[in-house]
Amino acid sequence: MSDIRICFVGDSLVNGTGDESVLGWVGRLCRDAHGQGVPVTSYNLGVRRDTSRDLWRRLEAECTPRLPAECDGRIVLSCGVNDTTWEGGETRLPFEESVTNLDAMLAFASRYPCLVVGPPPVDDDGHNGRIGHLSDAFAERCGERGVTFIDLFGPLVDDASYRIAVRAGDGAHPDSRGYERLAAVVGANPGWWFR
Amino acid sequence: MSDIRICFVGDSLVNGTGDESVLGWVGRLCRDAHGQGVPVTSYNLGVRRDTSRDLWRRLEAECTPRLPAECDGRIVLSCGVNDTTWEGGETRLPFEESVTNLDAMLAFASRYPCLVVGPPPVDDDGHNGRIGHLSDAFAERCGERGVTFIDLFGPLVDDASYRIAVRAGDGAHPDSRGYERLAAVVGANPGWWFR
Repeated sequence: MSDIRICFVGDSLVNGTGDESVLGWVGRLCRDAHGQGVPVTSYNLGVRRDTSRDLWRRLEAECTPRLPAECDGRIVLSCGVNDTTWEGGETRLPFEESVTNLDAMLAFASRYPCLVVGPPPVDDDGHNGRIGHLSDAFAERCGERGVTFIDLFGPLVDDASYRIAVRAGDGAHPDSRGYERLAAVVGANPGWWFR
Repeated sequence: MSDIRICFVGDSLVNGTGDESVLGWVGRLCRDAHGQGVPVTSYNLGVRRDTSRDLWRRLEAECTPRLPAECDGRIVLSCGVNDTTWEGGETRLPFEESVTNLDAMLAFASRYPCLVVGPPPVDDDGHNGRIGHLSDAFAERCGERGVTFIDLFGPLVDDASYRIAVRAGDGAHPDSRGYERLAAVVGANPGWWFR
């Protein structure tokens, strides 16, 4: 049995903020892996309000002690909703910086199996326009580097039940039904590791 | 509604390693807090094989970005089983260093509400003797600093069902029944925040 340990590095949606079951999409996928006989160790490194800049600052320091050489260490990156939040007349990060940050993170993470989960939609059409644009750019950069990109935005932006789940949360974070849906979309993707 | 965010800094038992439900004792307690109408944000910073020395190294770097000043940030510390593991003719850490490390962590954590959860027993009587000794020393140091200490060792060392749960795991980590029991002991302690 290989000793798989995964660092999920991301924002509040990775953390599972607002999920009354506490599992979030990360916990659901890892529980399902256990159910398939793969007892993964999961390190949830999702932090509220974090942008790609914040992730890049802590990526190496937090992943290195959690992924010793003798185990099958892996990294999942997920961010973008906070990068594209409108604050004080501009987005929290310039579009170009978000893509550069992702690229720098992919360069570090290339020593591990790595995949990127794109940012999901929120309950705000203007913000969704920016999220979709960034998600496309992330997908393109991943494609250039040969890294699996799992799209959440495309499958969910017009999904009424997901939007209701986000509205039932706080407008940015869904309730547990929404996290269930996120887990289902990631888990059904051919690029996901445990199916 | 106050915005409570808790960093759980510890070892594999904090991580929930071996729990097929993925929740561990940390996830169960946070789920129960949600059930009581307290939607805590939990940051699980348990890392496998970590001793008190490893915790002390990463405590400030990992807690500071997760506990911004405007939220009700808290810290739970839990370690000791790995400190007292016998390797190469000695324990992984000298007894005195473990106590000094805890003390240094308590000094940092004093800027937040903080509590310490003691190390639980394992399925090895010799190791348990050392864990019990260290747990007592941790309790004493917490008492001197006025920090709540929640004892897991005392209530569980002679608990046959917990020992069976540890044996059903890998000898150090229990299966989900054991994590359920750990959560029950912490949750029933008068010092726990959400009851």
